[in-house]
Amino acid sequence: MLTVLPVQEAQERILRSLEGFTLPEVWVPTSETLGRVTARPVVSPEMVPAYARSTMDGFAVRAEDTFGASESLPALLHLTGKVPMGQAPPGKLGPAESMEIATGGMLPEGSDSVVMVEYGEILGGQVAVYRPAAPLENVLSAGEDYRPGDKVLPAGHQLRPQDLGILAALGIAELQVFSAPRVTIISTGDEVVPPEASPGPGQIRDVNGLTLSAQVRESGGEPAYRGIVRDDAEELKLDLVHALEEADVVLISGGSSVGTRDVTARVIDDLPGDGVMFHGVSMRPGKPLIYGAGAGKPVFGLSGNPVSAMFGFLLFVKPLLRQFQGLKPFQDYPPYVEALLDTNYSSPGGREDYVRVVLYPGSPGSHGADEVDLPRARPVYGGPGLLNPVVQGDGYFVIPRDSEGLNKGVRVKVFTW
Amino acid sequence: MLTVLPVQEAQERILRSLEGFTLPEVWVPTSETLGRVTARPVVSPEMVPAYARSTMDGFAVRAEDTFGASESLPALLHLTGKVPMGQAPPGKLGPAESMEIATGGMLPEGSDSVVMVEYGEILGGQVAVYRPAAPLENVLSAGEDYRPGDKVLPAGHQLRPQDLGILAALGIAELQVFSAPRVTIISTGDEVVPPEASPGPGQIRDVNGLTLSAQVRESGGEPAYRGIVRDDAEELKLDLVHALEEADVVLISGGSSVGTRDVTARVIDDLPGDGVMFHGVSMRPGKPLIYGAGAGKPVFGLSGNPVSAMFGFLLFVKPLLRQFQGLKPFQDYPPYVEALLDTNYSSPGGREDYVRVVLYPGSPGSHGADEVDLPRARPVYGGPGLLNPVVQGDGYFVIPRDSEGLNKGVRVKVFTW
Repeated sequence: MLTVLPVQEAQERILRSLEGFTLPEVWVPTSETLGRVTARPVVSPEMVPAYARSTMDGFAVRAEDTFGASESLPALLHLTGKVPMGQAPPGKLGPAESMEIATGGMLPEGSDSVVMVEYGEILGGQVAVYRPAAPLENVLSAGEDYRPGDKVLPAGHQLRPQDLGILAALGIAELQVFSAPRVTIISTGDEVVPPEASPGPGQIRDVNGLTLSAQVRESGGEPAYRGIVRDDAEELKLDLVHALEEADVVLISGGSSVGTRDVTARVIDDLPGDGVMFHGVSMRPGKPLIYGAGAGKPVFGLSGNPVSAMFGFLLFVKPLLRQFQGLKPFQDYPPYVEALLDTNYSSPGGREDYVRVVLYPGSPGSHGADEVDLPRARPVYGGPGLLNPVVQGDGYFVIPRDSEGLNKGVRVKVFTW
Repeated sequence: MLTVLPVQEAQERILRSLEGFTLPEVWVPTSETLGRVTARPVVSPEMVPAYARSTMDGFAVRAEDTFGASESLPALLHLTGKVPMGQAPPGKLGPAESMEIATGGMLPEGSDSVVMVEYGEILGGQVAVYRPAAPLENVLSAGEDYRPGDKVLPAGHQLRPQDLGILAALGIAELQVFSAPRVTIISTGDEVVPPEASPGPGQIRDVNGLTLSAQVRESGGEPAYRGIVRDDAEELKLDLVHALEEADVVLISGGSSVGTRDVTARVIDDLPGDGVMFHGVSMRPGKPLIYGAGAGKPVFGLSGNPVSAMFGFLLFVKPLLRQFQGLKPFQDYPPYVEALLDTNYSSPGGREDYVRVVLYPGSPGSHGADEVDLPRARPVYGGPGLLNPVVQGDGYFVIPRDSEGLNKGVRVKVFTW
């Protein structure tokens, strides 16, 4: 039970234990899908744009009628009308004819290009065109953006503003997305009191209820905080059974001492299901992570130390919440800030080290030319029980298990909070 | 009126026009402040932790009583009790005495360090300590995280999960944050119909209502979509006057043609206030940006092209919404993904070019050793009227005004959507 796993193996075991499982699909109005994840591929039902549109103010023409036109020898075309915005053109365009058209206007049948207003001049019932137009010039063709049957969005895609835009353009007013994972958070510990209480001697206020709820929200889940439970196996079991009825995932934080961690593990083992799958991960902070399943649902035992619990969430709970929502557990290209480490940093080795840092501007001239502009990363020291290094800090970088530290001046990728 | 400004100058003019102006402060329960911005500095009212706590399971001791202890010659201390979790220790610790203590327990007065349980052994009423403890070893001192009067958070700080955590630890149940900016969005155009309508010939569905609303939400604002207004100065003016009564910022999108843009500009000029301050920015996409003030409030005229409107929002509206909320207009260290451009890319020069790209894994061996792992960035071509390049794409990089393009293989910073 007390196997300590490398981070990546722990992640794989968690994700594998629920492989292929996603939350139920729900229909949601498109306007409320920002950040949600598509449950089905979206296929274009129609052309976008539905008809050829002008991208400039000017004159709709047949390109061939303008070939050879110049300042000194303009093509003279018969002006047969004006395309009204939001309506069909007043008619077709015949040879040597032209119509006035504004940006966004519908090209009349027979025309294939638009001469910019700067290069045409109305002279009575005629338009003098001073430059030749190429076919399709200043035109957005019908279906140039999307055609019927085109894949618009794959399943498992997290919706961004532009995705809502194309759904609007296609007239898709609602769509199937995965439900948001419901995550219940239980804080444990005889010493823990609610944030609004005045702690007596030996007591502390609960921190993890708020931080974990906020992290759940940032990960697309719906947090439910069940409050504080004593270090008592029967009480915890009762609470966990209730939590498992409503939640998709349960987080139990607390139990920094071996004895109380054992209570959490025992309670998970007591439930029907696979029980504790592993206990402990070789990382700092966050080593004492418990993962198991109760009643077929994942239960995490996170450290009572706020910083350990935060990293436990980031590394293990968040990927699972992503998988539950139909996303890849890890982003393909997570954004970061490149910085130069501003000091030698030694690491214990044998476990992944998540180093909290502050970023500040680089001082020109102190490094190679292309590196002058990189910001500097200063480690903020402090154990997992101190909030200061994560509150002061801008983010963290990772030292791998097989490294015993990094030298001053190396590039690090800082993942910002 | 038709001065075309460089991006940075346009940004500066907008921000300067409302310098020092922030939205009203409101009291909000700490649990609901994720992503909001502190209106006042938060100063610690108390010690965190309030008392010295053990960070290990073991024995509270006076370090001096263990000096010289070893496996062969343990220090023998009198075991005087056990510290209960969540309560004061049963008494003080005298010379040559020790108490059992669990992680998180309150150190008894007189003790200054904790011997890990692995290095102590209970023998009847005594504890044999096999290793010397250093003063403060395995102890979190009172006030080590925060002391009364310490600055916890500055004003103008966007609240993250760990910030909510320290507020909980300090017993701060609510705090003053800046109001969320209310942003009203008006779509204009005789050709524009609501997303749920079936467009007739010459008509298109409104896209910008949804994309801009989503962008407002991502920027911490509260969007209100007023629907579609005809290209008519009187109608637009009426709508704008109503919008300005309730909103902090108004976005008018549409008017791709010169004529309709002029309507927007004229309406802004007609209102009491500074009128149009500039019209046009040297960038692509997004050139035809209008900025002005009506009734003392900022009004943006964004392009009707969805992609131009999106970039207009990102570059000009978002910084202002940040400033309104008390944040710096631009992030100090915006995260990005470094990638290698996978093709030569030429840029018109004379304006900033926002190049939409897709990211994909790099192929090992094709570049220098340290670059092998960088992803590749492939530009997704298409005018500002096409949504496909931003829906397919992962983000964008920027080519500065004075550059006429980039060569294949150069490093670019991709800002992901």
